[in-house]
Amino acid sequence: MPTPPLPPAALELLRRPNPAVIAVLMPDGKPMSVATWYLIEEDGRVLVNMDAERARVAWMRRDGRVSLTALDGEAWYTHVSVSGRVVEWRDDPELVDIDRLSTHYTGRAYPTRDRGRVNAWIEVETWHGWGSAARS
Amino acid sequence: MPTPPLPPAALELLRRPNPAVIAVLMPDGKPMSVATWYLIEEDGRVLVNMDAERARVAWMRRDGRVSLTALDGEAWYTHVSVSGRVVEWRDDPELVDIDRLSTHYTGRAYPTRDRGRVNAWIEVETWHGWGSAARS
Repeated sequence: MPTPPLPPAALELLRRPNPAVIAVLMPDGKPMSVATWYLIEEDGRVLVNMDAERARVAWMRRDGRVSLTALDGEAWYTHVSVSGRVVEWRDDPELVDIDRLSTHYTGRAYPTRDRGRVNAWIEVETWHGWGSAARS
Repeated sequence: MPTPPLPPAALELLRRPNPAVIAVLMPDGKPMSVATWYLIEEDGRVLVNMDAERARVAWMRRDGRVSLTALDGEAWYTHVSVSGRVVEWRDDPELVDIDRLSTHYTGRAYPTRDRGRVNAWIEVETWHGWGSAARS
């Protein structure tokens, strides 16, 4: 599979507030997939932010290998998937990062203010695309 | 995580032609995610159909544990994820099943007629939902 840097069409798709699904590994090695918000940072890492009590936070801390598929909101079979691992964890006590994500997706701050949140930054190791996003 | 049977709201979501992502395991145990069509059969198994030459066919034959997340096309944070394993493989030489999938999603037969296709049926072992699909 191709490695970074991603071509402009793939980056352009990833920068939009797309529907996305992240796949993580359960302790027995099974894949678990779930819808997620994500944000591609200036340095190319991918940010996801979770309720600190979610089971998948513990699973991702145990094995940081993940895959994330972002679907084009207009024609979802056009998609970009990135695969890599979590390279940084950071609590989000002031909800700064979940607000960045929420604003990106909804235009507003995150409505739930009374739950601990945690950030995970994913370093992209490989990627693949389909549809117009696959053209470099 | 809950086990089958799925509640009516989750089944109703799964029966629509939703955007979906499947996560499979690569030979080194890493998760790999990709957009996919799927169809929930009368018996509750989930059908996916692939080009027979795709690398993930070999990966899924090696380790049949998969997870699939279907997103509500109208409000994608409402989603249902099912987790389980491939329990049956069958070639699709007459393109009968890819045509069922294509018709479900696009209203038309599958346009590419010169490539081998293969079916995999997934037995659902656990599921989880979010948003209105999580209410039973």
